[in-house]
Amino acid sequence: MRVKGYKASAVKAEIRGRDRLDLGLIFSAVPAAAAGVFTTSLVKAAPVILGREKLKKGRAQAIVINSSIANACTGAEGMAKARAVAELAAESLDISSDLIQVSSTGVIGEQLDLACFSDNMAELAAGLGEDKLELVARAMMTTDTVEKISSAQVEISGRKVRIVGLAKGAGMIMPNMATMLCFVVTDADIAPQCLQTMLEKGVGRSFNLITVDGDTSTNDTVLLLANGMAGNEAIKSPAQKEAGEFQQALDKLLKELALKIVADGEGATKLITVRVCGALNSREAEQAARTVANSPLVKTACYGEDPNWGRIIAALGRSGIDFNPEHVDIFFDQVMMVKDGLGLAENENQAAEVLRQKEFTINIDLKDGAGVGEIYTCDFSHDYVKINADYRT
Amino acid sequence: MRVKGYKASAVKAEIRGRDRLDLGLIFSAVPAAAAGVFTTSLVKAAPVILGREKLKKGRAQAIVINSSIANACTGAEGMAKARAVAELAAESLDISSDLIQVSSTGVIGEQLDLACFSDNMAELAAGLGEDKLELVARAMMTTDTVEKISSAQVEISGRKVRIVGLAKGAGMIMPNMATMLCFVVTDADIAPQCLQTMLEKGVGRSFNLITVDGDTSTNDTVLLLANGMAGNEAIKSPAQKEAGEFQQALDKLLKELALKIVADGEGATKLITVRVCGALNSREAEQAARTVANSPLVKTACYGEDPNWGRIIAALGRSGIDFNPEHVDIFFDQVMMVKDGLGLAENENQAAEVLRQKEFTINIDLKDGAGVGEIYTCDFSHDYVKINADYRT
Repeated sequence: MRVKGYKASAVKAEIRGRDRLDLGLIFSAVPAAAAGVFTTSLVKAAPVILGREKLKKGRAQAIVINSSIANACTGAEGMAKARAVAELAAESLDISSDLIQVSSTGVIGEQLDLACFSDNMAELAAGLGEDKLELVARAMMTTDTVEKISSAQVEISGRKVRIVGLAKGAGMIMPNMATMLCFVVTDADIAPQCLQTMLEKGVGRSFNLITVDGDTSTNDTVLLLANGMAGNEAIKSPAQKEAGEFQQALDKLLKELALKIVADGEGATKLITVRVCGALNSREAEQAARTVANSPLVKTACYGEDPNWGRIIAALGRSGIDFNPEHVDIFFDQVMMVKDGLGLAENENQAAEVLRQKEFTINIDLKDGAGVGEIYTCDFSHDYVKINADYRT
Repeated sequence: MRVKGYKASAVKAEIRGRDRLDLGLIFSAVPAAAAGVFTTSLVKAAPVILGREKLKKGRAQAIVINSSIANACTGAEGMAKARAVAELAAESLDISSDLIQVSSTGVIGEQLDLACFSDNMAELAAGLGEDKLELVARAMMTTDTVEKISSAQVEISGRKVRIVGLAKGAGMIMPNMATMLCFVVTDADIAPQCLQTMLEKGVGRSFNLITVDGDTSTNDTVLLLANGMAGNEAIKSPAQKEAGEFQQALDKLLKELALKIVADGEGATKLITVRVCGALNSREAEQAARTVANSPLVKTACYGEDPNWGRIIAALGRSGIDFNPEHVDIFFDQVMMVKDGLGLAENENQAAEVLRQKEFTINIDLKDGAGVGEIYTCDFSHDYVKINADYRT
């Protein structure tokens, strides 16, 4: 997957002593407009703090990403190391370190060993190639089982514009204004402020609607670079028709990546959409959907392929929103399981059929108003516990 | 365990076709002052709706409890059946049905078969005996692995007063103003309104501080009967010295039962206290402790006996409270694992020792204020998933 002007590279830097790709680089031939959204957690990793600072200028040319160690809760030493990684990359790439974003994911609370970066930076820069974004997607994986890449293409003012996005994340996933890590590059020509608005909009419709385990990470980051090499007339305002066209393509790509994260959620065997309609407003609909999507009892029932709607209605009951239990309808895909708050036992076998699928929707109609909201989640399996009981060992 | 004037009984009524004790009865020789706290879920089971209604008079003489079916989300038919169960018991006991509380726990959304009750009510009443509260505790178990009983004794105005409490609950446990099911009987003489105040206070310090899975049930109920047969001078106001003495004994008993529920949480192998101090106020301390106690990542790490403090600090970061990450200290029991937001790797082995215990405390000091809060929880194991994937089958 290629986008004009971008190259990528990845190496094995043994950042936590393992024989795997763990250090990646994305590089644009020219400085690009840059937008970013970061974790809203009060506890922010060093690269997040540094990245927000650098992004104020609205420009970036390279992103250095490491997995294995998150560089979070690492204090002044961690901040100095994040800066040092940017400096090492700046030297190898011969550009200003102001244009370099660094990003980390992995274990919280351990310090990076700078030797892993200094020993490998030259090889990383020398390896830059046009067809290597997949390698970066692989290098940033932690408990992910597959790399996550999506691409889109859209014509803007007569020019073909391409967008490619890479994402990682499988656990500690209930992003709030951002997700674990996601990097999107495009050759579109878009002014930085406009780019930022569009990214925030897109993230609100994708990563902010997913949850694996209800936990928000210290390192959540989405970065979007636009280097303008497609040669389209520059987009300067989100109100332009061209901005709308780009937004649509961006939204689709971000949602694709968000769903890939959920589908690859730790131990997940099913991708579940929880859709609530008929709420008093969309905020309440989303809140209700999120409560159902985070309920361990609902998630384990999905894993067990048991249409145990009682757990869904119990989660709705404690969600804090206002509704009338006697109005509630619940469907698994198109199969009605609850009508006006009462179960339809005769549909149970058909509903169980739906749950045997890899993907399905829990449709909840509160019949009280026009509010609609969706949250994307996965089931809770034996492997979730296995993965997370043994994560650091 | 005996309390003056109370008898109990339990039978196998095959309410969901299984060969087990599933129908219980508690009976006081005289009408007792009665207090109750019920689920705050918007979705309330029929016996909860009926129980609240009956409790307005502040009196009760008997409690009928069934397991296997929760009689929740059962509509008008479910309400009629709850009333019918009370009527059947009233007939067998020859008292007014106004004095009978009914309580159910089990699968949501299935209707009770009244024949199970009418066929067995005479035997249930005939079996009443002074030493059978344990049998009721067993009859109300669902995924519980042990019956939960506690007792206390306190001298009030020269008279020995006894209190015995029975509780059940292992899943769908994050009670809010109540827990799954808990029945407390005492021979103390206490006025109904005073009894209600004391029960609410006690529940706030016990059941409202526990969580197994963050889910609140549709059937949560705590009932407290006081039949006055101890012959103490009647307690009429929570401000009396004697009320304080009773409250202390009640609090201790309720907390004991609450901790028994957590220790028997579905699949639980460890009982964990999450204690936050140094928060701006006690509300924020409790909110932070609750977020940590509900994090699946923290709970699986505890199961894995891994002092993965990064997950604790990440949960704090998303908890919504205000604090400075660079002030945070974290201890496992007395072993300091984090100082001023940074990990103490040298203490990791010692911390892992603490986690190998069956019970331990995660102590979090935010060093920002005087707010203190505690939440009691358990770990998240393979068996949690196993139990909940297969619950209804």
